[in-house]
Amino acid sequence: ASSFSFSDHSHRRFNPLTGSWVLCSPHRSKRPWLGQVEEVSNEQLPQHDPQCYLCPGNTRATGARNRSYSGTYVFSNDYAALCVGQPECTTDALESVAGSGASDELFRVVSAHGECKVICLSPRHDLTMPELSTDEICQVVRAWQDVYAELSANPAIRYVQLFENKGAMMGCSNPHPHSQVWALSEVPTEPAKEIESFKAFRDRHAAVDPCACLLCSYVRTEVANVGSESANRVVLQNDSFVALVPFWAVWPLETMIVAKSHVPSIAHLDSVQVQHLAEILQGLTIRYDNVFQCSFPYSMGVHQAPTAGDPDSGCNHLHLHFYPPLLRSATVRKFQVGFEMMAECQRDLTAEQAAARLRAQSPIHYKRAQK
Amino acid sequence: ASSFSFSDHSHRRFNPLTGSWVLCSPHRSKRPWLGQVEEVSNEQLPQHDPQCYLCPGNTRATGARNRSYSGTYVFSNDYAALCVGQPECTTDALESVAGSGASDELFRVVSAHGECKVICLSPRHDLTMPELSTDEICQVVRAWQDVYAELSANPAIRYVQLFENKGAMMGCSNPHPHSQVWALSEVPTEPAKEIESFKAFRDRHAAVDPCACLLCSYVRTEVANVGSESANRVVLQNDSFVALVPFWAVWPLETMIVAKSHVPSIAHLDSVQVQHLAEILQGLTIRYDNVFQCSFPYSMGVHQAPTAGDPDSGCNHLHLHFYPPLLRSATVRKFQVGFEMMAECQRDLTAEQAAARLRAQSPIHYKRAQK
Ligand SMILES: O=P(O)(O)O[C@H]1O[C@H](CO)[C@@H](O)[C@H](O)[C@H]1O
Ligand SMILES: O=P(O)(O)O[C@H]1O[C@H](CO)[C@@H](O)[C@H](O)[C@H]1O
Repeated sequence: ASSFSFSDHSHRRFNPLTGSWVLCSPHRSKRPWLGQVEEVSNEQLPQHDPQCYLCPGNTRATGARNRSYSGTYVFSNDYAALCVGQPECTTDALESVAGSGASDELFRVVSAHGECKVICLSPRHDLTMPELSTDEICQVVRAWQDVYAELSANPAIRYVQLFENKGAMMGCSNPHPHSQVWALSEVPTEPAKEIESFKAFRDRHAAVDPCACLLCSYVRTEVANVGSESANRVVLQNDSFVALVPFWAVWPLETMIVAKSHVPSIAHLDSVQVQHLAEILQGLTIRYDNVFQCSFPYSMGVHQAPTAGDPDSGCNHLHLHFYPPLLRSATVRKFQVGFEMMAECQRDLTAEQAAARLRAQSPIHYKRAQK
Repeated sequence: ASSFSFSDHSHRRFNPLTGSWVLCSPHRSKRPWLGQVEEVSNEQLPQHDPQCYLCPGNTRATGARNRSYSGTYVFSNDYAALCVGQPECTTDALESVAGSGASDELFRVVSAHGECKVICLSPRHDLTMPELSTDEICQVVRAWQDVYAELSANPAIRYVQLFENKGAMMGCSNPHPHSQVWALSEVPTEPAKEIESFKAFRDRHAAVDPCACLLCSYVRTEVANVGSESANRVVLQNDSFVALVPFWAVWPLETMIVAKSHVPSIAHLDSVQVQHLAEILQGLTIRYDNVFQCSFPYSMGVHQAPTAGDPDSGCNHLHLHFYPPLLRSATVRKFQVGFEMMAECQRDLTAEQAAARLRAQSPIHYKRAQK
């Protein structure tokens, strides 16, 4: 009998941050693909598009006009999923949609309020993060810090979810590069799961180390694994951050940027750490674009502490998730559909294979290299 | 101050089957869409495609040849994500990918085995479920029963996940209409969550009713709500099944087909119930195609009891989930991306609005009506 090999045999890996499993079937990518073929995203956009709602000086869909901004630009989302000052859900309102005989257990509703903001990365309509300079990315990180600080000061806000949808394939509704903040009166599902895991880990280890942290431990192990041939999941690192393919990654080339020291939120970063975060964001996104020589789509999100005053703030460890869908080429993506939606996430290559692929990319953006 | 209205104000609804929340922002669909536009899926396919790996009499990618079948056709997936007889994961193998200093808590792996099967709905390359006759759909349901029974007899299999990806938009890798079974040695994440919820519900109500069931209660309430103007989420029903938009739906026109009586699995259906399931599958999928007059993409999955002998079998209540992505038209879908992946699922219309839209569709397939 042959022995177990991670690159040949199906296995499930556990995600200790969310408590879920992923099925890894590394031989699956050999199957023929007669499915959907995406458009390649390397259309040349103009530097300024007069029709764009986000470009400097233009009028937005709702009639407001953008400043003629020259750096990052932050404004309130005109179609916010969350607003302030809406009425609370009453028992009568609930009864009208639940039906009169409905049990509270099966028909649970809370009203949700908050704020949504858009953060244009730069005035340039045509430049995504990997094409910006380190200084320009530093400005973006500082804009994220300012938005987090401003929203944290509002006692009605408990969580600030910062994210970016890059590329039409990831549902981005406007091609001008921008990140978003949706800030809520409650901690949403995914960060709430992570907070539970951070707390449980700390409690389990409290006798030995009262400051035990799941991601501090994880990052230590992964950095120590860098010399290993079979266990190296690190893509790149600097003094403050590491970019790695998590052991439990779901998306083909999923990565996580994790602070090396215990930093609860983006607001806690000093100017050197801001610079280091900008550098690693640039290095990682350049490698992403280089994989298939296209503008590499992904959803990115920052997970961090709930706003100041929250009792669970301290146990959080700042990290950024990147979920990119491309699998085989610039036009063939991985779908998390039938089995994945109904049963369990599934991937077609190992985390170690993905990390090796990303490490092999040049640190110079392919568009520059071509010049 | 105005009062709370479900169709104007953001709220979160709780899914008692999985224990997660969904954010509902019913005013969001008014925002301008400059994002991805899909191809309309109403290309006319041939009845038999000589290049298709699934058509009768053709040779598959791996060289095997399909029977010249005339009804449903079941065969083993040539690129199975799960196989039988693979070696078990050893401590040494794990150490080689986790690294030597790795903690068991952060690097958890189990080997996964099982079987994957493909179930062609019919010999016709061009006919999806809504275009089949009720008799043909009965055959499909009986094929599902047979596969479930066969796999259940294997003591190494604990869960049989039956699903269908319909349409290229939902990652279907071959347009010949087919459903799939991925059967596993363990109960995967999503059904495992539901089983916990069924058990917890039963235990909470055991003093009053030892057979209390979450979905029995839920279906009773929803059927009673049919007369209500504001709380009617039922799309269609017959004596054995109801198709409804769950109160906690995530996808724009998501539905669930639920057995009206307490049926743990598809194997428990008698011939009348098989007929009724076929009728409701037909009625629901016809209405789906009629919404945008296109072949309506979705992922469908059957949730039911783990295989015979599993102690948790009895508490399960057979139901089918339909997760369709289309939102605004045949070419503009809903994306569950940035905020949804990082924070919480989000939808742009209420479950009640979705149900009303589906109920308003004709029970005659648009292609027939045009003739
Ligand atoms: O089985 P298929 O059609 O080859 O592949 C499709 O369904 C599978 C099961 O949901 C997914 O893992 C694949 O990503 C998807 O493309
Ligand atoms: O905010 P946008 O770009 O208009 O919209 C995009 O991101 C949102 C937040 O992830 C999603 O809810 C939308 O489905 C997606 O199309």
